[in-house]
Amino acid sequence: MNNKQEKIYSFKNDYSEGAHPNILQALAETNAEQQAGYGQDDYSKRASNILRKEVQDENSDIHFVSGGTQANLIVIASILKPYESVIAADTGHINTHEAGAIEATGHKINTVATKNGKLSPEKIEALLEQHTDEHMVKPKLVFISNSTELGTIYTKRELSELYSFCKANDLLLYLDGARLGSALCSSKNDLSLAELSNLVDVFYIGGTKNGALCGEAIIINNDDLKDDFRFYLKQRGALFAKGRVLGIQFVELFKDDLFFSLAEHANAMADKLSQNIAGLGYEFLTETNSNQLFPIFPNTLIDKLSEKYSFHIWSEINNQRSAIRLVTSWATKEEMVDRFISDLEKYSTYN
Amino acid sequence: MNNKQEKIYSFKNDYSEGAHPNILQALAETNAEQQAGYGQDDYSKRASNILRKEVQDENSDIHFVSGGTQANLIVIASILKPYESVIAADTGHINTHEAGAIEATGHKINTVATKNGKLSPEKIEALLEQHTDEHMVKPKLVFISNSTELGTIYTKRELSELYSFCKANDLLLYLDGARLGSALCSSKNDLSLAELSNLVDVFYIGGTKNGALCGEAIIINNDDLKDDFRFYLKQRGALFAKGRVLGIQFVELFKDDLFFSLAEHANAMADKLSQNIAGLGYEFLTETNSNQLFPIFPNTLIDKLSEKYSFHIWSEINNQRSAIRLVTSWATKEEMVDRFISDLEKYSTYN
Amino acid sequence: MNNKQEKIYSFKNDYSEGAHPNILQALAETNAEQQAGYGQDDYSKRASNILRKEVQDENSDIHFVSGGTQANLIVIASILKPYESVIAADTGHINTHEAGAIEATGHKINTVATKNGKLSPEKIEALLEQHTDEHMVKPKLVFISNSTELGTIYTKRELSELYSFCKANDLLLYLDGARLGSALCSSKNDLSLAELSNLVDVFYIGGTKNGALCGEAIIINNDDLKDDFRFYLKQRGALFAKGRVLGIQFVELFKDDLFFSLAEHANAMADKLSQNIAGLGYEFLTETNSNQLFPIFPNTLIDKLSEKYSFHIWSEINNQRSAIRLVTSWATKEEMVDRFISDLEKYSTYN
Amino acid sequence: MNNKQEKIYSFKNDYSEGAHPNILQALAETNAEQQAGYGQDDYSKRASNILRKEVQDENSDIHFVSGGTQANLIVIASILKPYESVIAADTGHINTHEAGAIEATGHKINTVATKNGKLSPEKIEALLEQHTDEHMVKPKLVFISNSTELGTIYTKRELSELYSFCKANDLLLYLDGARLGSALCSSKNDLSLAELSNLVDVFYIGGTKNGALCGEAIIINNDDLKDDFRFYLKQRGALFAKGRVLGIQFVELFKDDLFFSLAEHANAMADKLSQNIAGLGYEFLTETNSNQLFPIFPNTLIDKLSEKYSFHIWSEINNQRSAIRLVTSWATKEEMVDRFISDLEKYSTYN
Repeated sequence: MNNKQEKIYSFKNDYSEGAHPNILQALAETNAEQQAGYGQDDYSKRASNILRKEVQDENSDIHFVSGGTQANLIVIASILKPYESVIAADTGHINTHEAGAIEATGHKINTVATKNGKLSPEKIEALLEQHTDEHMVKPKLVFISNSTELGTIYTKRELSELYSFCKANDLLLYLDGARLGSALCSSKNDLSLAELSNLVDVFYIGGTKNGALCGEAIIINNDDLKDDFRFYLKQRGALFAKGRVLGIQFVELFKDDLFFSLAEHANAMADKLSQNIAGLGYEFLTETNSNQLFPIFPNTLIDKLSEKYSFHIWSEINNQRSAIRLVTSWATKEEMVDRFISDLEKYSTYN
Repeated sequence: MNNKQEKIYSFKNDYSEGAHPNILQALAETNAEQQAGYGQDDYSKRASNILRKEVQDENSDIHFVSGGTQANLIVIASILKPYESVIAADTGHINTHEAGAIEATGHKINTVATKNGKLSPEKIEALLEQHTDEHMVKPKLVFISNSTELGTIYTKRELSELYSFCKANDLLLYLDGARLGSALCSSKNDLSLAELSNLVDVFYIGGTKNGALCGEAIIINNDDLKDDFRFYLKQRGALFAKGRVLGIQFVELFKDDLFFSLAEHANAMADKLSQNIAGLGYEFLTETNSNQLFPIFPNTLIDKLSEKYSFHIWSEINNQRSAIRLVTSWATKEEMVDRFISDLEKYSTYN
Repeated sequence: MNNKQEKIYSFKNDYSEGAHPNILQALAETNAEQQAGYGQDDYSKRASNILRKEVQDENSDIHFVSGGTQANLIVIASILKPYESVIAADTGHINTHEAGAIEATGHKINTVATKNGKLSPEKIEALLEQHTDEHMVKPKLVFISNSTELGTIYTKRELSELYSFCKANDLLLYLDGARLGSALCSSKNDLSLAELSNLVDVFYIGGTKNGALCGEAIIINNDDLKDDFRFYLKQRGALFAKGRVLGIQFVELFKDDLFFSLAEHANAMADKLSQNIAGLGYEFLTETNSNQLFPIFPNTLIDKLSEKYSFHIWSEINNQRSAIRLVTSWATKEEMVDRFISDLEKYSTYN
Repeated sequence: MNNKQEKIYSFKNDYSEGAHPNILQALAETNAEQQAGYGQDDYSKRASNILRKEVQDENSDIHFVSGGTQANLIVIASILKPYESVIAADTGHINTHEAGAIEATGHKINTVATKNGKLSPEKIEALLEQHTDEHMVKPKLVFISNSTELGTIYTKRELSELYSFCKANDLLLYLDGARLGSALCSSKNDLSLAELSNLVDVFYIGGTKNGALCGEAIIINNDDLKDDFRFYLKQRGALFAKGRVLGIQFVELFKDDLFFSLAEHANAMADKLSQNIAGLGYEFLTETNSNQLFPIFPNTLIDKLSEKYSFHIWSEINNQRSAIRLVTSWATKEEMVDRFISDLEKYSTYN
């Protein structure tokens, strides 16, 4: 459970630490004010205005929730009719790690097998061709994540083609941005936040994994999806009594581009790990594009590393080697990255 | 929406301010630590141990969620089979102000009309007699809140009789403690937290309305209700990635009985308001037992008060008079209570 | 359970016998034909065309299902968004005798207390005024039954006013016609089937309680409610593989107005019972308008009658007297009605 | 839609005709009797007793519903807790052709890829290993069909191994017997109805596809799954008012082994088609074991056959050839089978 005691450092995820100090300071400074409840406070309004500027759409509807699974189940349940389904990569978070949250709202997830966690028009088209009548569900929504659960990201061209395909096929496009900061700050990225926002019907910007205590900002661009959204928030238990807590955090995250500089640090730490691991001749499960990397190590090496460091063992490659997941964040200490690298070099000589 | 600008003070609810300073300080002091995610951090464990001592049951299962509606829908959905229903007072929060959250999990709420928001064995018995076969739902769970939505509280005798009745009739008892602190610190209360805990199958202790930024502690005493509860939390989007945020808050709330002293302040402010209002000859919709009071004022007086103060107009008594709801909290300033009273005296002379 | 052995006759309900012989004959005559499945057979199409003529709307969408609860849950679930509710009389079948079928689809039923089982604009308006924001469900659909669960019926004026009110308040109107035949053939009725159809958005015509083996015809008049309805039927397990079985029955029921003549017989038997019971000086819980009557008898008399006849004891009036429910049908034998009356006269002399 | 007019014969499915004449005769003979409603009639009880003898378990609970999707969604929803999932072959009916009926009850279907539509312990074990904590659903139920959607059947050894695996892994086993008659009468079958019943927790015997107008018999053998099942039936709209209609049909189907002789005819017709098709040198998608066969024909030949015969084009093999599905039934006319074969021979000479 708790890494702190046994290990010297954790690369297990990007939510091991608290929040960026600016956020705690802002919470303290505004603490005594009386504010309206349930997201109707000044700070939630201010954060919404800031984000509308960021996405360059003054008509976007913006709502704040406390976590990603909550955002996913509410957005999806608000869009689909009872017989409609959502299409996702088989590695999609909603399909694998949300305990059936989407199905619990009554909807089927149609999955598509992928190598890199990314969906393409071709894969979706094949699925649509199978769904021809009322004996099957009717696919209506496409779910993607950027960065994906495998650390890959969408290029401007890929996202444009996907969105065009959706529009041409009466499908809606939803992007899970739990790790959007890292995606947008990737050296491989060619999308601005505003450009990305313009290429989806609805998405969310993840705060929890990029410096907030909690909080995701749902951005609804498609007018058809805006009505009565607050009813969905309330019905699913997502309407925070002290909505100010979420609003204040996003005000701070987007002050002086803090959100982006935090993500840049996470990516820099990931790149440093990735380059040094590659330099030692190790391969990766997927190309490192963001703050998650998936190096493939001998199991004996993984055992050694596990004595000092926390990380997930992602998948077995063969009975000798496995892929592990290393995750960096806004809070990752470079000295610990260096230490991991030097330990890796040391252990590697034994292999 | 925002009271701050137009009014001088809000008695609208008990979540207008942030958190008690101790909580913000603890969040800051622990901020840099790496902790396990999803409620498996040291602080959530520590808070659970503290609460097990408070309820004097070392076998209680304890889970932290961010809000009351979330707690209610998850607890209720985790207990009931698809054809089973929950019994509640018609004024119960789950029946009136949760946007159909319980029904959205598939369950009917059987309501009972009450004057004071409290359930009794007699009222439940009459309802059970109507439910005789598979053409109707099967009532299985009783939902009560303490303090109730009308500010009333349960006595030890009332709760004991209700729990005995439930056991005798194969019903389970769940208590919504959104305002439990105020109830337990009421001058009319004769229940300790441990005694109350021993008289229900499951309940939650409200933090949001008593000094926390967010957070409710679900206490499961009945062994039959403990298995796999974390699946329900995850499936409903309630498992906080940074569960430490909830754990730390409850550690602080129950350090040196802070939770109770905060509630005592709220009650003291309510009593002061109540006594002075009564002193001016006004009646109340219900007896003031906790931090919510429901004075009945002439509509002209309500209009005058509304110019300076925020509060809910609760219900129309006749075309001349209405009941309003005044709510005090851990953060209510006594000077503002005094000011409200003096304004009330001033305006009352005109009537 | 089984009345046949102990009793000489049952007035318990209107589905104790099989089907009108014409229906069985038609099933036999068409039995060998190969027909398309799932309601796309010739007979379902023919029945739909016949019913479109009956309701005088060539654009009505018509679907056949096997029972009333199935019709109710599918129609309601197809109309409401997750946070929307349906308004019904507290005596409404969906609220009392469908085992939570509507809530199981995720929707709250907002109930209104009534004396005679009928809804009025006034009662609905009061309920709408309480539902002001996203903390509560949003009432969207009004459910009524004709005849009602208390045997009463709606007049043309009442239904017109109700429908106008719904339109003016952005509400939809759904009528449960499980006993529509008896309502339309009531001596008190002033509505034609076409007029009634024109005053609701969607309704169903009950076959099961008026001469069919099984089957209800859902008539959708409002264009907004027509799309993809077959998906809802399939998803809820209501799409009959041999849809011909339902289609053939409705073709027969509406051949030579059989549907209406069967209902007229049921009403005639009810009127005979009602007049003779009244003649003996007994009162009724509600006025007898259709094939259900609710006489109030001394409990001692009820015990005597129970030895020979099956019926429901509906409600206790006081500790001396109770209301029972007598139901007649297309199959009720007049000789048994006469026998019940003579027994009643005999037993009454003793009281 | 309707094949009758354009084609000379349909091999599209096994529910194109009505019911076996014995059933219609029994409905007529019992039509005038007064019987209790909702499955508590004499005939439903008699049918239950007959089936308990057939499965040789006097404690089995037996319920009758009108169709397979209804049976599947009710049984599965009655077994699973909200976070539990059902495991099925990717070709399983619940996964492909029930319009999301299972997900609409809130449950995820975990799918396993198969070649022949059959599940094995190995495939399930691999899936269980991936489901380790509360971030994922908890697989609890295994769904199989016999015969499968690809016409294959389970041997005694296969079913025994699967059931043992389920028991060893705290999984329950449910068998969809929509085409159970054909499976049990297959020349490849080595299971008796009683043996099969003894190797599953719950299953249903399909009547609709083997001579009934409508009706499936759900057999619950596992005591843990029996309580309150009628509540589930009512809540899902599956409790027939005139339950006698279902009971009478199963009494007739199991009189003098009619159920089995009807299935034997269907299989004989399938075997005749299969052998002659093979004799002409054509291959099949799967081995023909029951009343569904999947020959692979040139697309040009399929076009020719389509002019006279109705059938489903199942899947594309390459751009030259496709697999079609031919289905025989209790009502299939041997002369039409012979005609299809002679036409096939004729057309084949052209290829």
